[in-house]
Amino acid sequence: MPTVPPEKSQAAWRPTDNAALGHRLWAIAEGYIPSETQHAGSSSLASHETACLLNTNDTDANICISIYFSNREPVGPYRVIVPARRTLHLRFDDLADPEPIPRDTDYASVIVSDVPIVVQHTRLDSRDSALALISTLAYAEHHP
Amino acid sequence: MPTVPPEKSQAAWRPTDNAALGHRLWAIAEGYIPSETQHAGSSSLASHETACLLNTNDTDANICISIYFSNREPVGPYRVIVPARRTLHLRFDDLADPEPIPRDTDYASVIVSDVPIVVQHTRLDSRDSALALISTLAYAEHHP
Amino acid sequence: MPTVPPEKSQAAWRPTDNAALGHRLWAIAEGYIPSETQHAGSSSLASHETACLLNTNDTDANICISIYFSNREPVGPYRVIVPARRTLHLRFDDLADPEPIPRDTDYASVIVSDVPIVVQHTRLDSRDSALALISTLAYAEHHP
Amino acid sequence: MPTVPPEKSQAAWRPTDNAALGHRLWAIAEGYIPSETQHAGSSSLASHETACLLNTNDTDANICISIYFSNREPVGPYRVIVPARRTLHLRFDDLADPEPIPRDTDYASVIVSDVPIVVQHTRLDSRDSALALISTLAYAEHHP
Repeated sequence: MPTVPPEKSQAAWRPTDNAALGHRLWAIAEGYIPSETQHAGSSSLASHETACLLNTNDTDANICISIYFSNREPVGPYRVIVPARRTLHLRFDDLADPEPIPRDTDYASVIVSDVPIVVQHTRLDSRDSALALISTLAYAEHHP
Repeated sequence: MPTVPPEKSQAAWRPTDNAALGHRLWAIAEGYIPSETQHAGSSSLASHETACLLNTNDTDANICISIYFSNREPVGPYRVIVPARRTLHLRFDDLADPEPIPRDTDYASVIVSDVPIVVQHTRLDSRDSALALISTLAYAEHHP
Repeated sequence: MPTVPPEKSQAAWRPTDNAALGHRLWAIAEGYIPSETQHAGSSSLASHETACLLNTNDTDANICISIYFSNREPVGPYRVIVPARRTLHLRFDDLADPEPIPRDTDYASVIVSDVPIVVQHTRLDSRDSALALISTLAYAEHHP
Repeated sequence: MPTVPPEKSQAAWRPTDNAALGHRLWAIAEGYIPSETQHAGSSSLASHETACLLNTNDTDANICISIYFSNREPVGPYRVIVPARRTLHLRFDDLADPEPIPRDTDYASVIVSDVPIVVQHTRLDSRDSALALISTLAYAEHHP
């Protein structure tokens, strides 16, 4: 476990003190990308779902995402790499391979990494003129 | 625990690698379905509460939901099936048997499944002209 | 742990199958009751913070709440009872004894119960004309 | 573990009954401070990210925060003290040393404390005329 360094020069701090934070298996049961949006001209304000991925390790995280639906077999794996000591705020509407995620469709996702990561789920809904924003920690499997 | 497959053909990936993800006992302490809505003409934008259920198992999940109130005995069980390898975004206002959930009434819910599932709680509140949206992971009982 | 009952008459289902769900020690680090509101005429739409408490036990839950501040000693205990097999959606602006919670002030809360309960935190912010609504599971101390 | 005191004089209650609540290592994978805001005249309504920190111990919490980015090395430590038996609602846009957090940039944070604390993450987004507000419990490392 990382320890709080004493008050000394910043140089004594190393981000690798936070290595191996998180879990390797995560799930987001809520998923829905609306096709409507009131902010179509702005990518950051258009309706979207995001999985915020944090990799504090000193090695890259090789990640596979599976998408589950209500009426057909799961699709995957979508492959994503989060480099060592980086965060990636992944938009689900950017996923293209093996196939784009359909709009106006309920889905869920399972995220598997080869090293521990932390996952937080955020959705911006701009179907209405006002923004609606949600965020919640994804489900972490503690005892795999 | 599932492992991240090496970079090879998609055919080598099987969704069953994610089997048995989650817990069998969940609770959502917050519950309230407002009768007012500003988007009555649109089912997806009308005020509603949803439990997003994800079943990654290779067998169907047989689920019983109990509804708790502030001033009377609990009601249940509401029976729901989430098929193998499927997600179900269940609207509480669709529950009818043994009785519909009253509007404008505080309630809470307990969700029991015969196989592990993941549950996320979402509420869309459109009493106001602007949407308000919340989502949070349900409470999972870890050591039942 | 409760089990999913077979498909038989509703009479065979007992809510006590869900007894002892949750934890006895919870914390909500976020707390803020704005004095401004755009919906002052409606109690349910006025800005408020709520702790949704669920007691699935067959005995009443005797609960003590402590309120923490940024610049003075904690205040408490606020005493609340959630009856057996009931939920209580407690508004923090209803707490009066030993003293009301000040408006426009950062606070946090610790909730202790003599039997296991589940706690979810919700805030409705109507300072703006549009509603903003948040909800998240409170922090449960797993290994007290 | 704290116990619910019997109904007697308030003087018998001590906040130190809640000592040692929480964890020492937390992560918030979502982070984004928009430069746009519709409420620039009001500090409390301007877009901001907050980490709500609760220290129920009888000793001060010495906290180090590391900020992770998508395209460069982490920055830190940002040093914060939460006094004994206090809460601090820390705005990320107030952090200045070793450097301010850039606007319109994805980031994530890791929070390490020398005593157990509880962390909840809140974001107010007022890029739109209506407020959007999110809050979620941060990720707690349970078995460090």
